[in-house]
Amino acid sequence: MKTEDNLKKEKNISIGKTTYRNFPMVPRVVFGKGSFSQLGDILLPKRKNSEAPFIFLIDDFFENHMLALQIPLLFNDEIIFISAEEEPKTEQVDAIVARINEKYDEKPSGIVGIGGGTLLDLAKAVSILLNNKGTAKDYQGWDLVHKPALYHVGIPTISGTGAEVSRTTVLLGPERKLGINSDYTTYDQVILDPDLTKTVPKDQWFYTGMDCFIHCIESLNGTYINAFSKSYGEKALELCKEVFLEDIPESESRDRLMMASWHGGMSIAYSQVGIAHAMSYGLSYLLGVKHGLGNCLVFQHLQEFYPEGVKLFDQMLEKHNIQLPKGVCSNLTQDDFDIMVHVALGMEALWENALGPQWKTIMTPERLQALYEKI
Amino acid sequence: MKTEDNLKKEKNISIGKTTYRNFPMVPRVVFGKGSFSQLGDILLPKRKNSEAPFIFLIDDFFENHMLALQIPLLFNDEIIFISAEEEPKTEQVDAIVARINEKYDEKPSGIVGIGGGTLLDLAKAVSILLNNKGTAKDYQGWDLVHKPALYHVGIPTISGTGAEVSRTTVLLGPERKLGINSDYTTYDQVILDPDLTKTVPKDQWFYTGMDCFIHCIESLNGTYINAFSKSYGEKALELCKEVFLEDIPESESRDRLMMASWHGGMSIAYSQVGIAHAMSYGLSYLLGVKHGLGNCLVFQHLQEFYPEGVKLFDQMLEKHNIQLPKGVCSNLTQDDFDIMVHVALGMEALWENALGPQWKTIMTPERLQALYEKI
Repeated sequence: MKTEDNLKKEKNISIGKTTYRNFPMVPRVVFGKGSFSQLGDILLPKRKNSEAPFIFLIDDFFENHMLALQIPLLFNDEIIFISAEEEPKTEQVDAIVARINEKYDEKPSGIVGIGGGTLLDLAKAVSILLNNKGTAKDYQGWDLVHKPALYHVGIPTISGTGAEVSRTTVLLGPERKLGINSDYTTYDQVILDPDLTKTVPKDQWFYTGMDCFIHCIESLNGTYINAFSKSYGEKALELCKEVFLEDIPESESRDRLMMASWHGGMSIAYSQVGIAHAMSYGLSYLLGVKHGLGNCLVFQHLQEFYPEGVKLFDQMLEKHNIQLPKGVCSNLTQDDFDIMVHVALGMEALWENALGPQWKTIMTPERLQALYEKI
Repeated sequence: MKTEDNLKKEKNISIGKTTYRNFPMVPRVVFGKGSFSQLGDILLPKRKNSEAPFIFLIDDFFENHMLALQIPLLFNDEIIFISAEEEPKTEQVDAIVARINEKYDEKPSGIVGIGGGTLLDLAKAVSILLNNKGTAKDYQGWDLVHKPALYHVGIPTISGTGAEVSRTTVLLGPERKLGINSDYTTYDQVILDPDLTKTVPKDQWFYTGMDCFIHCIESLNGTYINAFSKSYGEKALELCKEVFLEDIPESESRDRLMMASWHGGMSIAYSQVGIAHAMSYGLSYLLGVKHGLGNCLVFQHLQEFYPEGVKLFDQMLEKHNIQLPKGVCSNLTQDDFDIMVHVALGMEALWENALGPQWKTIMTPERLQALYEKI
């Protein structure tokens, strides 16, 4: 995949005039405490026949949890529990798709992803690969998917990634961590039930919420921003501040963080993330650091680029008594740094958004390595 | 149509547990100055064949305007210019549908509505009636449309109504002013080009912008509100305040008002409008007062219900030197008042949202008439 070409597509710039992305929105959404119980009714008209199952991909955190008992199984529907300990991988997608194709004579009626960003991204990718030939890595990039995905439903159980509303599914492939970014990636249906986020462990809650906070800071301070993305980003940022800096009742806080994640995801429509995400991709690729935590590890050192944002971030860390791991990069070799720097600098659109078209003169490999060394 | 039944559907309350509306969002949106020029490329893959035209319903304000020359006509496509002087009517929808059915052997490829709320509502209704038997009035109400509408594209040229994003099309019928409120009403595609709103006359700009401002005040102060609708309503309200009370550059102001309208429309997903809209419906029904102006005429007298909102509204009137018509109801007969009161009180969900379940004890016909007499 040519990165130059990619950048053009990402910005949708054609020669001589600006064209704007025709952004796919989630066409159906339910919001409300307890709305998860409507899943059965929502799936019913989408069932092709009794031989075409719904496959539920669920975070294995819920394996012995009430939620697993509430899945509206019918006929030969199947639950596949999946660990979210690691970032989602292209080969994992291929394995799930192969298993489904082998087991069932009929193509499934649809895929339901239940969990955080990892599960939501896996479910998107599986639904694409069930309707498109080849392997997941073939589709990492911009608009490489040419056939609609299988009907897919996303149900977040933690808030912040925006995966429930975005047109991408970010996967760790053999060569890169990169999204399958296409019009067919977006969910056909989302259920936003804030009660499902009751069980989130506190550190996860914080890191994943910070994913939203950080991508709002990056998109609002980026050069790509326009009024559409700005309005979503500002609302998401405001909600993050309420959730992480004010003292609001827990139930209200869950509601607002779920909406922050939603609007934060939408704010990327005509913008991009920036330095923290680019560097975090490098950390994930080399060390398998999870995305939310990776963003936090990087963002704490970006005062010179996002002064206001980092100040707020420090207040949030303090208020919630979060201790970020230290010395994460202290034992790395020069080869390791080279790999991370290479992966991070490959995210050209993110750097251009953050630093403008002359970004290469600003962010040299040496400067980037020095930032990594602080982590 | 039974109003009780209607109310239940509107709130989606079933016995014993709350169910939440599965809200249809516009599945595709382009935002950007000059994005109107992408219309031809967007329609191309939706053309069924050369005999199946696109029908463009356009506000006749644009009849001798550059915009009319930029319509990407192909094959037997047709432009129908329509006056937006009056509120859209069910019989008008039926006439347009009959004309299209008579003229073409094939069903059109789709309908494109270009204009303000009137044109956007007409285009939605025409696209429904081209795929559903009977007449427009048969579908006024909740979820009475059972077959998908023809592919339809909405392009607003004035900001505020939220018609570009809502799941309703409000029509003046022989018996009532009421929406065709269904999952199939929502546009399949919207193009948000703020440059198209450059030509709006100042009073129209104000009245239509106030439609957005007023429905945000009504939904945010209503009893139906939840965190989803609240986050959209708050953002829309904030944008309205910036546009109508701050001094921002015109181009920026057009961008923000277009986004205010968009978010304002979305805020109705899990909420409702309130007293101003209910009373404005009465004014429209009896006197044909246009919706935006009608809302303003009513809202100025609603201090006791929306104190903060009316205070802001007064500041906006003053800042933009807007003189609202006076004595609109001064020559009405008792029969006239009875009709308006009857129409307004018929909007049960709006009253319940505004005043709670006991609204009938609060808003008596006498009290309502006294409010109308001030206008």
